[in-house]
Amino acid sequence: MNLELEFLGTADARRVPVYGCRCRACERARNDPRYVRRPCSALIRAEGYQMMLDAGRTDLCETFAPGTIQSVLVTHYHMDHVMGLFHLRWGAGHTLPVHGPDDPDGCDDLYKHPGILQFQPPLAPFVPTDIGPFTVTPLPLNHSKPTLGYGIEYRGIRLAYLTDTVGLPDPTTAWLQQSPLALMVLDCSVPPKPNPPRNHNDLNLALALAEQIRPEKTLLTHLGHQLDDYLMSAPELPDGVEVAFDGRVVELGS
Amino acid sequence: MNLELEFLGTADARRVPVYGCRCRACERARNDPRYVRRPCSALIRAEGYQMMLDAGRTDLCETFAPGTIQSVLVTHYHMDHVMGLFHLRWGAGHTLPVHGPDDPDGCDDLYKHPGILQFQPPLAPFVPTDIGPFTVTPLPLNHSKPTLGYGIEYRGIRLAYLTDTVGLPDPTTAWLQQSPLALMVLDCSVPPKPNPPRNHNDLNLALALAEQIRPEKTLLTHLGHQLDDYLMSAPELPDGVEVAFDGRVVELGS
Ligand SMILES: [Mn+2]
Ligand SMILES: [Mn+2]
Ligand SMILES: [Mn+2]
Ligand SMILES: [Mn+2]
Ligand SMILES: [Zn+2]
Ligand SMILES: [Zn+2]
Repeated sequence: MNLELEFLGTADARRVPVYGCRCRACERARNDPRYVRRPCSALIRAEGYQMMLDAGRTDLCETFAPGTIQSVLVTHYHMDHVMGLFHLRWGAGHTLPVHGPDDPDGCDDLYKHPGILQFQPPLAPFVPTDIGPFTVTPLPLNHSKPTLGYGIEYRGIRLAYLTDTVGLPDPTTAWLQQSPLALMVLDCSVPPKPNPPRNHNDLNLALALAEQIRPEKTLLTHLGHQLDDYLMSAPELPDGVEVAFDGRVVELGS
Repeated sequence: MNLELEFLGTADARRVPVYGCRCRACERARNDPRYVRRPCSALIRAEGYQMMLDAGRTDLCETFAPGTIQSVLVTHYHMDHVMGLFHLRWGAGHTLPVHGPDDPDGCDDLYKHPGILQFQPPLAPFVPTDIGPFTVTPLPLNHSKPTLGYGIEYRGIRLAYLTDTVGLPDPTTAWLQQSPLALMVLDCSVPPKPNPPRNHNDLNLALALAEQIRPEKTLLTHLGHQLDDYLMSAPELPDGVEVAFDGRVVELGS
């Protein structure tokens, strides 16, 4: 039985290409759809159960038949991570459970008019919760809104999905180090900066975290166009660290 | 010199087809893209100037090359009318003026992080303002958030764009009656109801307003799937009243 993660989107809030930008990375994405980055989100699946991690894409209703996504796990209520919920909510004939952090504001009127979304009680940091076949452990992150990363375990296979964040709170790092991780998906939004940015990892911070936590594989996500541009002429990333692209599927387990 | 209005979207917040709905109208839209209704919005153009009325569509960056829309005129800050601004704002290399009602809340963090959007001073009811080649007169509407309809004049041709609203405030009706209207675009969201709905016109209210204001032509917009379903077996609409569809272009003037 396998655990799969599929990247539905790997961009920062501006997406790639950036509207009107003529940089190398944006032009590359315009010329070759493999380099387009949509809002940062992913599917986790096992045993036919699909859990969506964030819902920033606005084509979800057209892409997924009703009932083929069994639950949504939200990292935080920034628009680039939840915009698709504003479409999903007005569906008919089925319901969709949404799990997420304790954020009383949520996003705009989502809580007031949930439609078919069933907002579940907020997840508590470090308290494992079963969602479908997965055991999900919420991991606090450092961001400008209440934000949770997630440890996800399925039949002894462990992955972590960590965005949006700058660095990691110590207790989160400690949790990640306590048993082997097959995969770490990590916020890496901008190229190396003299001073780390406020709400997201630059490449220096992301590589330092990979070194510190030592998962089998690290995939960087939430990339901005400037990081793509930088990587087009940068030295190779360290062993075990790669950049994610939209549509990539990672299979974990036997 | 002509004035043109193009419907970019004619749906209520749920859109047509509704995700997962099996009603006749939703199935028709699934089988024939001419019946798909996207978020309620329009383009007004003259002399090569394009003003967008509301920005609920999420494919605006892919549909309009940077600089081809010269300004945005927002009726109100409900998500189905402004969602596309969350993409447009992160553009590069140009700016985009946004005019709208006096709504201190706006929508989520749009005011806080406007990016390339240049929010203009709020428009004052009944005070005509020049935007590009148009004279725009803000007309208060009845809705659950501060909402303005607009009278738009170009070389003596007058049209009105009135959504979202239930009925009309008396001063707005008086303004609309004071000189001939070539076109009235009007909120009509639901089929005839025993009790008019709270925030939108049903068909009864919309037809009564057309009768009272007597524009040359009335086009109904902001339609929900139930109204489409109703119209599939309803008697014809009165002379001069029609239902709008996405992509329809109305030419006004000589
Ligand atoms: Mn983000
Ligand atoms: Mn964020
Ligand atoms: Mn609306
Ligand atoms: Mn509205
Ligand atoms: Zn760029
Ligand atoms: Zn329907």
